[in-house]
Amino acid sequence: MGRTKPHARAGVRKAYRGGAAADTPKGEHNMDTQEKRTGGFTLPGEAGHEELTLRLAKTWGADVIRDSDGTELSPEIVQAGYDIYSTICIIRGHNEFARRHPECLQQTFLCTQPAVATGGALVLDPMAGFFAEQFRPNDSAEALPYWQVWDRTAGVLLPADAWHYAGGKVTVPAPEPFHAYTVSFLAWRLWEEISMYNHVTNGWQKEHLIPIDPRLPAAQEYLYAWLEDWCKTHPNTNVVRFTSMFYNFVWIWGASERDRTLFTDWGSYDFTVSTRALADFAAEYGYALTAEDFINRGDLHVTHMPPTARQRDYMAFTQRFVAGFGRKLVSLVQSYGKKAYVFYDDSWVGVEPYGPCFPQFGFDGIIKCVFSGYEARLCAGVPAQTHELRLHPYLFPVGLGGAPTFAPGGDPTRDARQYWGRVRRALLRDKIDRIGLGGYLHLVEDYPDFVQYIADVADEFRTIRALHEAGAPAALPLTVAVLHVWGALRPWTLSGHFHETYMHDLIHVNEALSGLPVNVKFISFEDLQTDAAGTLSGVDVVINAGRAGSAWSGGAVWIDPALVAALQKWVYEGGVFLGVGEPSAAPGGGGFFRMAQVLGIDRDTGARVCHGRWQFTVEPVPGVLPAGCGVKGLDGLYLTDGTARVLAADAATGLPTVTAHKFGSGCGVYLSSFQYSDANTRMLLDLLLWASGKGLAQPWLSDTPGVECAWYPASRQLIVINDTDAEQAANIAAEGGPLSVVLPPYGSRVLAL
Amino acid sequence: MGRTKPHARAGVRKAYRGGAAADTPKGEHNMDTQEKRTGGFTLPGEAGHEELTLRLAKTWGADVIRDSDGTELSPEIVQAGYDIYSTICIIRGHNEFARRHPECLQQTFLCTQPAVATGGALVLDPMAGFFAEQFRPNDSAEALPYWQVWDRTAGVLLPADAWHYAGGKVTVPAPEPFHAYTVSFLAWRLWEEISMYNHVTNGWQKEHLIPIDPRLPAAQEYLYAWLEDWCKTHPNTNVVRFTSMFYNFVWIWGASERDRTLFTDWGSYDFTVSTRALADFAAEYGYALTAEDFINRGDLHVTHMPPTARQRDYMAFTQRFVAGFGRKLVSLVQSYGKKAYVFYDDSWVGVEPYGPCFPQFGFDGIIKCVFSGYEARLCAGVPAQTHELRLHPYLFPVGLGGAPTFAPGGDPTRDARQYWGRVRRALLRDKIDRIGLGGYLHLVEDYPDFVQYIADVADEFRTIRALHEAGAPAALPLTVAVLHVWGALRPWTLSGHFHETYMHDLIHVNEALSGLPVNVKFISFEDLQTDAAGTLSGVDVVINAGRAGSAWSGGAVWIDPALVAALQKWVYEGGVFLGVGEPSAAPGGGGFFRMAQVLGIDRDTGARVCHGRWQFTVEPVPGVLPAGCGVKGLDGLYLTDGTARVLAADAATGLPTVTAHKFGSGCGVYLSSFQYSDANTRMLLDLLLWASGKGLAQPWLSDTPGVECAWYPASRQLIVINDTDAEQAANIAAEGGPLSVVLPPYGSRVLAL
Repeated sequence: MGRTKPHARAGVRKAYRGGAAADTPKGEHNMDTQEKRTGGFTLPGEAGHEELTLRLAKTWGADVIRDSDGTELSPEIVQAGYDIYSTICIIRGHNEFARRHPECLQQTFLCTQPAVATGGALVLDPMAGFFAEQFRPNDSAEALPYWQVWDRTAGVLLPADAWHYAGGKVTVPAPEPFHAYTVSFLAWRLWEEISMYNHVTNGWQKEHLIPIDPRLPAAQEYLYAWLEDWCKTHPNTNVVRFTSMFYNFVWIWGASERDRTLFTDWGSYDFTVSTRALADFAAEYGYALTAEDFINRGDLHVTHMPPTARQRDYMAFTQRFVAGFGRKLVSLVQSYGKKAYVFYDDSWVGVEPYGPCFPQFGFDGIIKCVFSGYEARLCAGVPAQTHELRLHPYLFPVGLGGAPTFAPGGDPTRDARQYWGRVRRALLRDKIDRIGLGGYLHLVEDYPDFVQYIADVADEFRTIRALHEAGAPAALPLTVAVLHVWGALRPWTLSGHFHETYMHDLIHVNEALSGLPVNVKFISFEDLQTDAAGTLSGVDVVINAGRAGSAWSGGAVWIDPALVAALQKWVYEGGVFLGVGEPSAAPGGGGFFRMAQVLGIDRDTGARVCHGRWQFTVEPVPGVLPAGCGVKGLDGLYLTDGTARVLAADAATGLPTVTAHKFGSGCGVYLSSFQYSDANTRMLLDLLLWASGKGLAQPWLSDTPGVECAWYPASRQLIVINDTDAEQAANIAAEGGPLSVVLPPYGSRVLAL
Repeated sequence: MGRTKPHARAGVRKAYRGGAAADTPKGEHNMDTQEKRTGGFTLPGEAGHEELTLRLAKTWGADVIRDSDGTELSPEIVQAGYDIYSTICIIRGHNEFARRHPECLQQTFLCTQPAVATGGALVLDPMAGFFAEQFRPNDSAEALPYWQVWDRTAGVLLPADAWHYAGGKVTVPAPEPFHAYTVSFLAWRLWEEISMYNHVTNGWQKEHLIPIDPRLPAAQEYLYAWLEDWCKTHPNTNVVRFTSMFYNFVWIWGASERDRTLFTDWGSYDFTVSTRALADFAAEYGYALTAEDFINRGDLHVTHMPPTARQRDYMAFTQRFVAGFGRKLVSLVQSYGKKAYVFYDDSWVGVEPYGPCFPQFGFDGIIKCVFSGYEARLCAGVPAQTHELRLHPYLFPVGLGGAPTFAPGGDPTRDARQYWGRVRRALLRDKIDRIGLGGYLHLVEDYPDFVQYIADVADEFRTIRALHEAGAPAALPLTVAVLHVWGALRPWTLSGHFHETYMHDLIHVNEALSGLPVNVKFISFEDLQTDAAGTLSGVDVVINAGRAGSAWSGGAVWIDPALVAALQKWVYEGGVFLGVGEPSAAPGGGGFFRMAQVLGIDRDTGARVCHGRWQFTVEPVPGVLPAGCGVKGLDGLYLTDGTARVLAADAATGLPTVTAHKFGSGCGVYLSSFQYSDANTRMLLDLLLWASGKGLAQPWLSDTPGVECAWYPASRQLIVINDTDAEQAANIAAEGGPLSVVLPPYGSRVLAL
C-alpha cells in the first residue's frame, strides 16, 4: 500500500448490511463477486461409500479425491473423472522386508530414569518405563559402543569398563553410593508412531507397521523399487502425497498408561538417528556424536530450547540426506507423469520446507494440516507451486486432543467453525491454493449441518483465493521481524499445533500477526550477529517473546555484547523493540533482560528482592488499548529508571503489564505476556503502529476488534470478516471516507469499490 | 518429653470453660496460677509527661523505665525508684566531631544505573538517582583508586586510563558505542539512616545526625572518651542499651520520591565499608576487595542470596572488628556498675549474636523488636543473660509499613493483639525474660483500650515466664533441621521482619515452627559438607525451602555430589527431607531439584515442556490435612517416576501441591509453597509426625488448629492458647485422657494437672 494518509473518519459514506454467517445459505456472502463453486477442494474418498463420495464431491465442489492413510479408493471413485491423490508413507507398510532386514529398522536414543545406588552393585533395566511395543534395545555389536552410563549426581560419564551389559540388563558393579545413574542406549523402533497412535486412538486392529530407515542402502534400494512398482500399478493417481518423507517427529511412549507420552516434539531429530547415520556424520564432520548429544541429561533437545552447535550440524547433515534420497523418489514419481506433494507433518523431520535443501526435492506442492492462522501462513510461504490446507476436524471419531468429534458428545460443525475462523483471517494475507479434509467420509452422514458448513467454507475459500488471483492485498507500511533462534528456517510455528504450544507467548503473537495487514519476517540471532544492519533494514519492529532460556527468548545468545549493542543502536536510531515475557533474558548480567536499557523494565529473579521499586501511575495511550484487551501479569517486574510509561497494570499485583520506553529516536515496548484474542490482536496492531510512529489512523482498518479486512488494490475489492460469534457493526477506513458494515456472527463480505 | 504413647482420645476427662480473651478483664486467665503483676516490663518514659509515665508504670507493672532514641527522661522519672535504661546509638549525635573529622564519616559503595553510550564521550554523574542528603561521593586521593567504571554490556572493567573524574563527573572519552556503563564509587554517608527515617516518617525537624566510623582511630578515641563522660554524668542509669553497635543495616535512598528506597537489607554489610577497612582487610587476608565485591553488577549482596567466599571473609573480618571495639565500650559501661544490653536491630551489623565473636562483647542482655513468633525465638536463643522483646506497635503515629497506628485511622489495640498472638505461641517454647514498648508514651492517652490491653499482655507474659521458671516445656520426640546457607549463624530470621520477607516460603515455615512443640535447629550446607553424619545425628526432618538460587534453597551448592549423596543416604536410612518451593534446585543437572530422586517430584523450567506428565489421583492421608489448610501452587511441577503420593493438588492447575515419596526407610515430602496460617501450621506439624513415622497421636496436642498448648512436666502445668479471633473448643491429649477446653478469642488458660 503506497498511501499512508488515513481517510477521514467523519461521515459514513455507505452502509452495508448483510454478508453471510458461516451457517447461512451458501453463496450469499459472494454477492459482490463472481462465484467459483468448484475446484481447489480435496475430498477424502472412501471405498464402500462410493455414492456418498461422489455426492459430497459435488456438494463441496471437489476437484480431487484422495485416499487416506489406512484406506484405499475403489475403482468407481478412481474412475469418476476426478483428479486422484494417493497418500504414501514411504517408510512403513513393508513389514515383510523389515523382518528380513532387522538392521533396517529405524532407531532412537533413549535414556532410563535416574536410579540411585543404595548399596552394592546397581542393576539397570534399559527398557524400564518404555513402551515395549514401540522400542527394543539395539545391543548389536555396532550399537553397544554408543551406549553410555552416567553418574548423574556427579555429572560424570562412566568409563566402559565400569559397567557391563548382559541378559538385557546393565550392571554397575561398584557405583558411588547414593549417586544416581542412567543408561543411554540405542533402541530399535518397532512401531511407526502414527500407525501406533491411530491404532490406540481410533481402534485400529491391523498389524503394527514397522518403520524402516532409508539410511541403509538395502532399504533405499528396496523402497525405490517398491515406489517404482507402485507408480506402475497406480496409473489413475495424479498426485502422490508423501506422508511425509522418512522420519517422524519424536514421540516416545511410556509403559504406564498413567504416563503414556514420555516426550513429544514436532521438531526434534532423535528419530533420524542410527549407527549408520552416526558413522556417516563422523566421517563428514570429523567429530563423533555421542548418546549424550541427543539425551542431554534426559532433557533431550526440544525445539523450544536453543540448539547446540552439534545439534545444528546434525540437523543440517540429516536435511541433506533426506533431500538427497527424497529427490530420487520425487523424480521417480514425476517420471511417471504424476505430481509429488509433501505433507508437512508426521514424518516431515529433515524436510524443513524453509531450509536450504528444500528446493532440491522438487516437490510440486505442499499440504499442511491446520488448526490456526499461523499454520496457514507457514504453508503459504513455502517455495512450492501448490499450497494446500488440510482442515480440521479430521473425519475421525475423536480429535487430536482426545475429545469426541464425529462421536457422541462431539460437535464437528462447532469445531470446524472455530478452526476456520482462525485460518480464514490468515488467508486474507497470503494465498493458499487448495483446501481439503481427511479421514473417513462416512462419518459425516449423521451430521448434515457439517456437510453444509463445509460447502460454505469451500465457497468462501474460493472467494478469498479469487481475490488473491486478482492481485496481492495491501499491507500497512510496517514490517515486523520476529526474532528467535530458528529465524527464517522455522517461521510462524513454534513446533506443532497451537494447542501443543499454547503455553508459549510467541505462538499467540504469531497467531495474531498471521491475520494482520503488516509485513512479517522471521530472523535469527545468527542473522543479527552476522549482519545486523542488513537484517534490520526495512524493519520497523523487532519482536522477541518468550520464557528466559527458551529458543524464543534466545537464552545465552544474549550474553553477546555485539548483539545487544547492535539492537540498542538500531532502536536508538528509530527502531522499536517489542519484548514479551522474558525478552532478551540471560542471567549473570546484573539485570535479567539484556535489553532493559531499551525496555525500561526488567524482571527480578530473586537477587533484587531487596531493591526498591519505582512507583508509577498507569497512563494509557488513547486508542491503543481496545476494550476487552489485557494480558496476564508476571511477577518480579520493575521499572529500571522510572521513565517507562505504564500503559496497563495487573489488577491483582499492581505490576506493569504493558509499558513503553523512549530510547533515542526509537522505543522499547514491553508486554508481560500475550494471549491471542480479538481485542489483544488489535492491541498488538495498535501498539505496533503507535510505537513505530506510523500513527493509529491507517486506511483499511476497521474500528472494531474482531472485524478485520483486506484491500486488494489491483481489483479494488475489499473483504471484511467477522471473527467473532456475535453480530458486529464496524466502520472501515476506506478511500473517501468510512464504510459502515454490519456482519452476522463469523460472517464475511466482499465489496467492490 | 520421654513418653510418646498417645492418650486415648475417647472420653473427655474434664471440661474447662473460660480463660480470658485478651480484652476481657485482666487476670482472669491466670486463675489457675499464681499471678505476678510486676516486673519484666520496660516502659518508655517521656519527659513532660511525668504523671502519665508513673501511672502507666504502675498499670503495666513496669520495673524499668527507658528513654527512647530522640527523647530524654526528666529527673522526676529518673528518680522515681525504677531501674533506668538509657539508649545510646554510639555512632551518631556527634556532629561537631564529625565536622572536625570529615574523614571519620561512615561510607558505602554505590553504583550508578547503567547508561548507554550513544555517540562520543559518555559523561556520568555518580550521584544521579541517589538521595543527596544521604550520600556524597568520596573522591579523596585514597578513595578514588577504589572507583570502578564497568562496561556492563560486555561485562568488562575499564582500565583506569580509559576514564577520568573531574568536577563531580566521570567521563569515558571513547566508550564502545551502545554499550552500557556504570560507575562504582565510595560515598560518604551524611545522615544516619534511622535518624533519616524518623525525620521523614515522624516529622522530626532536628539537625541531621551524621554517622561516624569507629574504624578510624580518632573516632574510636573520641567515642570512648565520650562514653566514659556519659557514664559519669548518668549515675541513675542502670542499663545502657546500645542501639546497636556501629553499622546500620543497608538502606540506600533514592533522589526521587517515586523510588525512595533503592535498596534495603537487614543483613548486608555494605555500610561497614571504608578505605581503612579495605586496607586493613587486604593486609590481613592477603588479597584486596574491590568495589565489585560489594556492587555485584548492581545487585549488591542481599542476605537472600548465597554469599561469595570473599563476602564471608569480609563479614568475619567486620565481626571481629565490631566485637573488638564493642568489647571495650561494654567493659567501660560495666566498669561504672551499669549493665550493657544490645538492641538486635538498626546498627546491629557485625554483631551477629549467634556468631563466634558475640560472647566477646560480654553483653548482659539483648533486646529484639518483634512482630512475630520467629523473632521471639531468635531473641530467646542468643547466649546472653537477659532476653527482652520490644513489642509492636511502637508508640509512634505510624507503623513501619507506613499505616497509621496512634493516628486517625489507626487501631493500636488491634495491631498489638495481632502481633502478640504471633509472639505468644513462641513464648510457650522458649523463655523470654522481659518485654517492653518504645516510642512516645503520651500517644496512648487517647487509647484507653490499648492501655488495658497492654496491662493484660504484661500479666500474660509474666504467667508464661513463670511456667518456664518452674521447668522447661516438653517437646515432641522430633527434631527438625532447617537447612540454608547461613545455618546456625542466622537462625530463625531470613533478614528483617516478616512483612519484609513474606515473599519467601521459609519465613512462613519458621514462623510456624516457632510455636510448635518440636526441637528446631538450623544447619548450613557447609555443616553437611564438613560432617553430614554428625550434623544430621538426632535429626528427624531436614527442611529446605525457597526459591531456586536463593540462600534458603541453596543455589549452586547443590551441584556438589557429595552433599546430595550424603542427604540421599540419610533419607534412605530413615530421614525425612521436606522440600518447599524449589528445594535443592540447581540448573544443569537435567532435572532441577537435585533431591528429585528422594522427593519423587521435580519442576520443569522450560527444557521439559515437551515431556509427558504422570497422571495421578489425589490420596490424602487421614488426619494430616486439617480443614482450611492449603498452599499456593507452582507451575511446572511433575512427578518423576509416578510413585509419589499426591496428598493435595491445586484446584486451578491440577498440579500437585503436597506430595510424599518413600525412599528406602525414609521419605521425601514436598510442598509447592507454604503460607503461615493456623491450619497450615497444624498441617506442617502433622506432616512432620506422619512422615517421620512418629504417628499423629501424640500427647499434649490439641485436636483443633489454632489452639496450641505447652506442658511443663516439672511443675505439671499446662497452658492452652487460642491463636484465633473466634471462640474455640478443643480436646487436649493429656495423661489419663483428653481434656476439653473452651477458650474465648485469643484467650489462654493455665491448668495445673
